[in-house]
Amino acid sequence: MIFLERDEIAALVDMRLAAPAIEAAYQASTANEIELPPVGHITFPDHNADCHIKFGHHRSQPTFVIKVATGFPNNDPARAPTGNGVSIVMSAETGETLAILYDQMLLTDVRTAVGSAIATRLLARPDACKLLVVGTGAQAGQQIKAHRELLDRELDISIWGRSPEKASGMAAKHDADVATDLEAACRNADIIVSVTGARSPIIASDWIQPGTHITAVGADAPGKHELAFELINLADHLAADSIEQCLDHGEFSMLESSRHGDVVELGTLITSPPVRSDDQLSIADLTGTAAQDIAIANCILTAHAEQGS
Amino acid sequence: MIFLERDEIAALVDMRLAAPAIEAAYQASTANEIELPPVGHITFPDHNADCHIKFGHHRSQPTFVIKVATGFPNNDPARAPTGNGVSIVMSAETGETLAILYDQMLLTDVRTAVGSAIATRLLARPDACKLLVVGTGAQAGQQIKAHRELLDRELDISIWGRSPEKASGMAAKHDADVATDLEAACRNADIIVSVTGARSPIIASDWIQPGTHITAVGADAPGKHELAFELINLADHLAADSIEQCLDHGEFSMLESSRHGDVVELGTLITSPPVRSDDQLSIADLTGTAAQDIAIANCILTAHAEQGS
Repeated sequence: MIFLERDEIAALVDMRLAAPAIEAAYQASTANEIELPPVGHITFPDHNADCHIKFGHHRSQPTFVIKVATGFPNNDPARAPTGNGVSIVMSAETGETLAILYDQMLLTDVRTAVGSAIATRLLARPDACKLLVVGTGAQAGQQIKAHRELLDRELDISIWGRSPEKASGMAAKHDADVATDLEAACRNADIIVSVTGARSPIIASDWIQPGTHITAVGADAPGKHELAFELINLADHLAADSIEQCLDHGEFSMLESSRHGDVVELGTLITSPPVRSDDQLSIADLTGTAAQDIAIANCILTAHAEQGS
Repeated sequence: MIFLERDEIAALVDMRLAAPAIEAAYQASTANEIELPPVGHITFPDHNADCHIKFGHHRSQPTFVIKVATGFPNNDPARAPTGNGVSIVMSAETGETLAILYDQMLLTDVRTAVGSAIATRLLARPDACKLLVVGTGAQAGQQIKAHRELLDRELDISIWGRSPEKASGMAAKHDADVATDLEAACRNADIIVSVTGARSPIIASDWIQPGTHITAVGADAPGKHELAFELINLADHLAADSIEQCLDHGEFSMLESSRHGDVVELGTLITSPPVRSDDQLSIADLTGTAAQDIAIANCILTAHAEQGS
């Protein structure tokens, strides 16, 4: 049995190798090739916190994955990270535990950011280069890395956060600019990636210029919202990692029912990219799926095996 | 973070200490003090196998537990055990991973057997001493240990299995007798503990003498049955670890709806033991709950902490 700690896993992460694996996972998920039971969920209301248990089996693979991830946003990061967790890889042929990846949320952060960059790559204008990241958690840093690694263009990146200090720190760490005014920053952006834990919309509809692409990542549970409801309903292109999850508890849970049929899964867009004009608005809503967790865990185990060989 | 392997965990198991913890867990579960979301489930039809993910949070405790257990009954035990798994203990205050118990099913086996012995102790006649164990898997051995440790009387134990060789091996290992004829063994028993993976009843109604107690453990998923349906409906006392689970996918899923109201949870019986006469039939149906998984994981961590102090 392979047991890897976070540092060992971090050394094996390669977003450029993860991207095609996660694209394939989106396609397999859309093609219904992955058994993805309902996500397990425990809440800790006193801490505004929760634990998600995502698990599934890509039926053509010899392994399956159970991923546990906690989100305790009120944690003081100096004492405990706001996210934590473990991935378990088991044999689909014998039920044996093959690997325990004690990644402490790293793989969730990586697969989420890689999925976002895939969505941005599929949906944003080909010349879109002004990227605004809204949010300053661990996920914001991974989003910057993933967009830099996976978009084939030079990006002009700025970061906005409720805490200007955190935004400054994150900007300095990732060689990006600080945005002090969210409205002005949204008006100026080609691409907006929102990665906050907001429970009511923080991005207004009239701040968004024609031609903008938004990848919305923060809304991953009922009651979480980052985008103005009218903004979602105005979008020309609507993409989701999982239509079912996004309509149920993602940003798209506020989509008018008449538009539900317009939502397209990333797994479809990979082979049939959207045809967009330069003044259209596109929004990708990502809630995160076990398909990604399976893909990233397998990437790490493949890299680990290659390292050992 | 504490990481313990199976051998280390085995050295910390103490059924006599686990029993009161599991009794308290049954009581807390019945009192609705434990958040117990629906059990996660992945099936592997090609192997007649599955994976259960049980998780929950006893709201007065600072930790919560996620337990993963696989059952691959077709495995050749010489190559891979038929059961496997991991328990993860996390902080309900920070979401941090406190312990990974790589127990490979041991804790599931132990907490199941302890729960069974608790049920037998609550329901069987006080002088019942002829125990028949039906089944020869790892669970059969744990049942013998648990009943010997937790019933305050000398037991006369026999084992029946579809494979006479396995029954002989198990009997020799646990200093018990082999039963060659299931009907005769059932007719002679005061207590029957059934721990098979049977998918159709193997214990007939007219084999069971008045005064017998049966603890049925094998039926833990839809389509599994060990007891004749009429036998269940004849029972004077019906007990369950979880009424909801047992009526849904346990032995009691075949109970006539007119008798659903007669089923009592072990958590209730602990403080209000059943009043039984010597010629009544009692049946306990156990499907296993995350409440037990939480209790046994905490027992191991307590023993580990005491060992280190």
